[in-house]
Amino acid sequence: MQTNANPKTSVLATGGGARLLDPADTLVLLLDHQSGLFQTVKDIAVADLRRNVAMIARLCSLLKIPVITTASEPAGSNGPLMPEIHELAPHAVYVPRKGEVNAWDNPDFVEQVRASGRKTLVMAGVWTSVCVMFPALDAVAAGYDVYAVIDASGDPSEMASRVSLARFVQGGVKPTSTNALLSELHRTWARPEAADLAQLYALAAPNYAAVMESYARAQQAARDAAATR
Amino acid sequence: MQTNANPKTSVLATGGGARLLDPADTLVLLLDHQSGLFQTVKDIAVADLRRNVAMIARLCSLLKIPVITTASEPAGSNGPLMPEIHELAPHAVYVPRKGEVNAWDNPDFVEQVRASGRKTLVMAGVWTSVCVMFPALDAVAAGYDVYAVIDASGDPSEMASRVSLARFVQGGVKPTSTNALLSELHRTWARPEAADLAQLYALAAPNYAAVMESYARAQQAARDAAATR
Amino acid sequence: MQTNANPKTSVLATGGGARLLDPADTLVLLLDHQSGLFQTVKDIAVADLRRNVAMIARLCSLLKIPVITTASEPAGSNGPLMPEIHELAPHAVYVPRKGEVNAWDNPDFVEQVRASGRKTLVMAGVWTSVCVMFPALDAVAAGYDVYAVIDASGDPSEMASRVSLARFVQGGVKPTSTNALLSELHRTWARPEAADLAQLYALAAPNYAAVMESYARAQQAARDAAATR
Amino acid sequence: MQTNANPKTSVLATGGGARLLDPADTLVLLLDHQSGLFQTVKDIAVADLRRNVAMIARLCSLLKIPVITTASEPAGSNGPLMPEIHELAPHAVYVPRKGEVNAWDNPDFVEQVRASGRKTLVMAGVWTSVCVMFPALDAVAAGYDVYAVIDASGDPSEMASRVSLARFVQGGVKPTSTNALLSELHRTWARPEAADLAQLYALAAPNYAAVMESYARAQQAARDAAATR
Amino acid sequence: MQTNANPKTSVLATGGGARLLDPADTLVLLLDHQSGLFQTVKDIAVADLRRNVAMIARLCSLLKIPVITTASEPAGSNGPLMPEIHELAPHAVYVPRKGEVNAWDNPDFVEQVRASGRKTLVMAGVWTSVCVMFPALDAVAAGYDVYAVIDASGDPSEMASRVSLARFVQGGVKPTSTNALLSELHRTWARPEAADLAQLYALAAPNYAAVMESYARAQQAARDAAATR
Amino acid sequence: MQTNANPKTSVLATGGGARLLDPADTLVLLLDHQSGLFQTVKDIAVADLRRNVAMIARLCSLLKIPVITTASEPAGSNGPLMPEIHELAPHAVYVPRKGEVNAWDNPDFVEQVRASGRKTLVMAGVWTSVCVMFPALDAVAAGYDVYAVIDASGDPSEMASRVSLARFVQGGVKPTSTNALLSELHRTWARPEAADLAQLYALAAPNYAAVMESYARAQQAARDAAATR
Amino acid sequence: MQTNANPKTSVLATGGGARLLDPADTLVLLLDHQSGLFQTVKDIAVADLRRNVAMIARLCSLLKIPVITTASEPAGSNGPLMPEIHELAPHAVYVPRKGEVNAWDNPDFVEQVRASGRKTLVMAGVWTSVCVMFPALDAVAAGYDVYAVIDASGDPSEMASRVSLARFVQGGVKPTSTNALLSELHRTWARPEAADLAQLYALAAPNYAAVMESYARAQQAARDAAATR
Amino acid sequence: MQTNANPKTSVLATGGGARLLDPADTLVLLLDHQSGLFQTVKDIAVADLRRNVAMIARLCSLLKIPVITTASEPAGSNGPLMPEIHELAPHAVYVPRKGEVNAWDNPDFVEQVRASGRKTLVMAGVWTSVCVMFPALDAVAAGYDVYAVIDASGDPSEMASRVSLARFVQGGVKPTSTNALLSELHRTWARPEAADLAQLYALAAPNYAAVMESYARAQQAARDAAATR
Repeated sequence: MQTNANPKTSVLATGGGARLLDPADTLVLLLDHQSGLFQTVKDIAVADLRRNVAMIARLCSLLKIPVITTASEPAGSNGPLMPEIHELAPHAVYVPRKGEVNAWDNPDFVEQVRASGRKTLVMAGVWTSVCVMFPALDAVAAGYDVYAVIDASGDPSEMASRVSLARFVQGGVKPTSTNALLSELHRTWARPEAADLAQLYALAAPNYAAVMESYARAQQAARDAAATR
Repeated sequence: MQTNANPKTSVLATGGGARLLDPADTLVLLLDHQSGLFQTVKDIAVADLRRNVAMIARLCSLLKIPVITTASEPAGSNGPLMPEIHELAPHAVYVPRKGEVNAWDNPDFVEQVRASGRKTLVMAGVWTSVCVMFPALDAVAAGYDVYAVIDASGDPSEMASRVSLARFVQGGVKPTSTNALLSELHRTWARPEAADLAQLYALAAPNYAAVMESYARAQQAARDAAATR
Repeated sequence: MQTNANPKTSVLATGGGARLLDPADTLVLLLDHQSGLFQTVKDIAVADLRRNVAMIARLCSLLKIPVITTASEPAGSNGPLMPEIHELAPHAVYVPRKGEVNAWDNPDFVEQVRASGRKTLVMAGVWTSVCVMFPALDAVAAGYDVYAVIDASGDPSEMASRVSLARFVQGGVKPTSTNALLSELHRTWARPEAADLAQLYALAAPNYAAVMESYARAQQAARDAAATR
Repeated sequence: MQTNANPKTSVLATGGGARLLDPADTLVLLLDHQSGLFQTVKDIAVADLRRNVAMIARLCSLLKIPVITTASEPAGSNGPLMPEIHELAPHAVYVPRKGEVNAWDNPDFVEQVRASGRKTLVMAGVWTSVCVMFPALDAVAAGYDVYAVIDASGDPSEMASRVSLARFVQGGVKPTSTNALLSELHRTWARPEAADLAQLYALAAPNYAAVMESYARAQQAARDAAATR
Repeated sequence: MQTNANPKTSVLATGGGARLLDPADTLVLLLDHQSGLFQTVKDIAVADLRRNVAMIARLCSLLKIPVITTASEPAGSNGPLMPEIHELAPHAVYVPRKGEVNAWDNPDFVEQVRASGRKTLVMAGVWTSVCVMFPALDAVAAGYDVYAVIDASGDPSEMASRVSLARFVQGGVKPTSTNALLSELHRTWARPEAADLAQLYALAAPNYAAVMESYARAQQAARDAAATR
Repeated sequence: MQTNANPKTSVLATGGGARLLDPADTLVLLLDHQSGLFQTVKDIAVADLRRNVAMIARLCSLLKIPVITTASEPAGSNGPLMPEIHELAPHAVYVPRKGEVNAWDNPDFVEQVRASGRKTLVMAGVWTSVCVMFPALDAVAAGYDVYAVIDASGDPSEMASRVSLARFVQGGVKPTSTNALLSELHRTWARPEAADLAQLYALAAPNYAAVMESYARAQQAARDAAATR
Repeated sequence: MQTNANPKTSVLATGGGARLLDPADTLVLLLDHQSGLFQTVKDIAVADLRRNVAMIARLCSLLKIPVITTASEPAGSNGPLMPEIHELAPHAVYVPRKGEVNAWDNPDFVEQVRASGRKTLVMAGVWTSVCVMFPALDAVAAGYDVYAVIDASGDPSEMASRVSLARFVQGGVKPTSTNALLSELHRTWARPEAADLAQLYALAAPNYAAVMESYARAQQAARDAAATR
Repeated sequence: MQTNANPKTSVLATGGGARLLDPADTLVLLLDHQSGLFQTVKDIAVADLRRNVAMIARLCSLLKIPVITTASEPAGSNGPLMPEIHELAPHAVYVPRKGEVNAWDNPDFVEQVRASGRKTLVMAGVWTSVCVMFPALDAVAAGYDVYAVIDASGDPSEMASRVSLARFVQGGVKPTSTNALLSELHRTWARPEAADLAQLYALAAPNYAAVMESYARAQQAARDAAATR
């Protein structure tokens, strides 16, 4: 059905949605998710962090949201980008940097963002307090609407993580979580991608996989019982 | 006494209360408290979450506060609404949705809210970051005064929970807790429902039940001692 | 079926079971679960503690396991026994004490235990480190097989709780938890009390209630779908 | 020295201090620190909570800061006010309430506050989310400069405590801690009460007592060594 | 090389190994890893639990260790076995039960264990305190050498989990963890399966995947540098 | 009543008590509770540690249990003994050491212990893993029955603390907590010191003070109500 | 290259950076990092706190950022400043105070700040809630742009620490962490100090040292392999 | 003084010490402390782990305790040994392995241990549950007295760490901590290395450094005061 092509628009017609992000205006920036930096992350388990980032990559492929990645010196000790990102989001564009810590200090990166024509930026990266914080604050200053996905990012201590959350709020960056981003981007189950999206929920909240398995088995049991009656 | 019928009004006459919610203008929205989603909640024990939600349902019955419930596909893997809600608040109105994640994207739901004539919305639900956050932000945008009851809601991780709290504050939604909602709605013990309200405090703070049992027994002991003197 | 009358016996015929407790030889001792003492418990939430104790009382009624309760000065500041115990286990026998901290120092209590003819004692109480520890060590010395239900008991700090667990093991007392006691006492679902027992699991592990609600709803959904096909 | 009589004034002459509270304009409100309510506090150990409240009472006596106390039904199950407050701050004025949960809903209380002529209110109480939150928000609305001393207050869960902190900030109430209040009120060691104030630091930060003991002993050791040389 | 076919034997020739398990005598028992029960697990994240169980299944396939699975009523609310087990260990044998909580109470299960001819039993399951504890204690009583893999099992609370660990030690069951089991079964890298085993370490300790990615990239960088020199 | 003079003896006549310590045979050793060492304690709050140690000192005075203290170089950086010990237990004997870390390596100390004629040693100190562990293990080897009071001792990390508990159990030292020691030494409330002992419980479990205050107030309220009837 | 002399300027030319601090306008204030006060810090391990402060001192030397230190009565029980600061930042200026708790109440200190001509103040100290909070709020009132480095500061409890973070945000002070400060001051790796800066990252995130060691060894291994081919 | 050369012997003459380790019979084994494995350690901060291992290396140099190190494939992804070990303990002997996970499976390693002639083995390594557990259990089986230094070792989860501690105790390995090892090896301050040993305590318990700084400053202040009198 046609309205599924842009569920947000039909939704908006009901009068809601003004405070939520508009998928058609959204660009996702994945910053410095590198294997060496992962070892320094202490506010989230690396298994959870990678699963969340992979989920976002898959989500962007599914919903055709553009993605830009970048890394600081992937041949150095910070290590390569986690390979799942470009595997799951083959349309993602990689922008190399020239030593700048802050991606927003790199003119190519800023140009790539501007060229997308989108004004809503969803950012995640490692470290949250640096690789996400610096471009997020700069982007807000440049007039963008900026979201930081806290659990698809990582900081070197719990204390640094709490500080980052506070500084984001203070600086006008909207904090969010992977599961919220998933829901905020698809908005309705009445769309063709529904079955694929359900699989992503099991990544965003691992217990959900067991919920779906239990559900399917309970229904099968009821059908089996009916068949033998 | 007559003034008990509207304790808030008499209270306001003393000059206080402008910053607290007005029970006579309050509508409670309980969003997606479903058994399948409960399994994914990780920021509060499910036993505590259910007790808090049940307490709110009972409180709304007692004080005659209107309640609207909704669920996303209760025949699906998300499971049915917890049955205690409609058992304890038989006056609650259930609004089915058509696949929308955000209840505010459903015109029937928004219309039901508008029809209540109330402008203070108290919301709780699972997940906090989605099922509460999205309608809360939309309702603020639509001019409502919105409260989110954090411990009658649930998020899939502690980190997501901290992020939700920050985003509520940033977005102008007032965060509150079940025990505060209880006190903020009844406001004074000088009212006919006092004894019933005291029972609710034992749900909001389980140790309080033991406090009341100890108190009753201590008084009985003093009376027994007097009787045998 | 007849073998259900004593599931343990038929089970033992298969060669297993020697290390588990024998329900037919078990006596449950609930020691000093008093409202005043509950306020000092810091290793478990009082709501959880009470739910576990109530579950054991109900279980003993269902499976006809004898129960002895006792309290130190219930008219004093320690407060009354939690009323749920004798409500849910009306067959429980209460033994008053004469000031002894250790129930095993009270001859009436010890005599009541001996009169039961049972040699397997399951104990729970507040404080774990005192009201359970002292009679447990004494009972081991007197030749009983003793279990301490740690999460139906309470200690005044996490540190005291860890110490108690270590001292139980060192002293030959077997530590266990409420959910394990439930399973160890009923042993098989092929018995007439199965439906009632299932309800108890929802108390021992609160998420289990939602699991059962989801299951029932999923089956109903499958049957509804079949009916409309 | 004369300038010690009002250290704040001399300090202000240096150009600083505008953002900190002015001791000469400060009134301390201690709300519902009752023994029954203490049992429901779960975000701070009761021993720490009582020590902090006692420290504030002693501090107000020492620096001659006015104090108002109040309680909701001290003859009921909420129990009496902790006795240390009026023992350590004999100048404190107690205002009884008539069943109102929110002290600001009681006209006598509001009048007592107004009569003090002070516009900076420092509040602490149990529960934070109710007994402090409600009058704090009302007082801000009435034009007062309001501080909430979080660790001289208590909430029934960690989650409620985090929510309270967020709601205070959102509502324009300044959160503070007991140790900060101590320093903010005395401001300089160059005053006659210095020795007494040092004792209070050992209450606000218990390790500080050992620091002072070590210091005194080290100096004694040095003097002893000198004497025997 | 031939000695790789049985690395344990050559290792033992050096005089070590007597206290470690012998892979050639080991049988793995996976007990009740069911989707409904997973929802009640509170001592380990379900994502970690499933990854550990899947790792063990894969390991047993790789090293040709026999596996027995069982479930209590998979068509009921406890839900189906997690499908990864039989997918990754197609050689695993499933033994249905007839309502017994304790697998060792089921004669078919005990017979299947006996028929394997192996005397070292490695057990994991949900709940640890029941589905692992009961057969583990019975198997020790029956003369087996028994290991419990704590982090491939799950209990309904942290407290129950600590109690289980203590009771295992007291009862002569050896507690172990998934990563230790992996190392204890393969014992040396000088064997043909080395590359596959390395992949399993990344499952047992998620950070290890990033370590290997960094290593490969650093070596590539060195080779690239050499090539361009 | 005469039997109160030695409650343990009358208690033993009932057949119990063999596994508990005998107050008449007990000697308390307080080892290196020094202000400098306190700063390194990380497994218990120093305020709690000092309160527990002070409670033991007061208890020993009340029940006339002998006490020996010792310190390693109190004029050095480890600092002086906490003064409360000798204030509250004026009968305690202080034994200086000559640089030995382990008090049991000091012949004067061992001689003092032997001269007491008591064979049950209750030890506490800082660090648990050193100043308690070493003499405890040596005393067990020398034939004493040894208890370590874990929460009247302190270790430099949580991990070290858990390790100490395990090593005590392994080495035959019985771990206990301050509240258990209090109960184990007085054994019955039917003794002349009952009122003083009740005060000590408020130190061992701070919430208990509020329980007693609530109790007294509730009784007063009942009496007041009776008087006005 | 010349642009390295002022990397910020060249960076700004790309349009970014407006929301981040300008190294050329930054003055670092290290307040009361004294050995006695360290003993009262409970929101961060003292080893981590000292390492973070030392890192900042070294960073300021490397990048030629001016530093002012101060202490309240270093000859008293608060103890001396940690010696690493002036060792690693020999250019730091020490300003003694005359008993003022708040450095901003000391005219010499305020004058020294003004004389620097810099308007961006980065503050850290012990206690966060006092020694950082008070001058930070005063400096904001005086028109400065103020940052508080939370993990190079310390508070006497976790609760006080959370409160401080909230009060900083409310008061317009920007919270940050040591690792973020490091990145925010150097901004690009294309500068002569790159190798020295890399060493500092290993202090800000200890796992980073191992990452660098692994990287160097992996490259060496690849070169060795190439050499032997 | 001569007896300082072997303080343990003179100490033993007093009758104590039988249960503590004998420094003259002790050999320290440091197993697989490699930079790649460090990234997977989750039960202790890597900074703390490295500091503890470095402290042991320095201690062994100071007290002339022999040390053996080993690593599994240091040119592979597990990375090199942390360099501090051989820098601080230049007398340590490195034994390469041939792919064996368990050092005790390597004949050269076992031979090196035997050749030392010492029967008390102190082990630490990464992972605790593998690299320490396996040789520890084997060494116990071979008749050695074995200690595991838990906080100089690391495991991939908190749960694995708790399991390791339990399995060590069950298997007859004595668990200890770095600070206890330090004290147990030097035993008395009356020895020539006293000043150097004091420095090591500041590594084992970081707050201790501040204690010593405060002490020195307090003594200086007393001397200064005396000088100016």
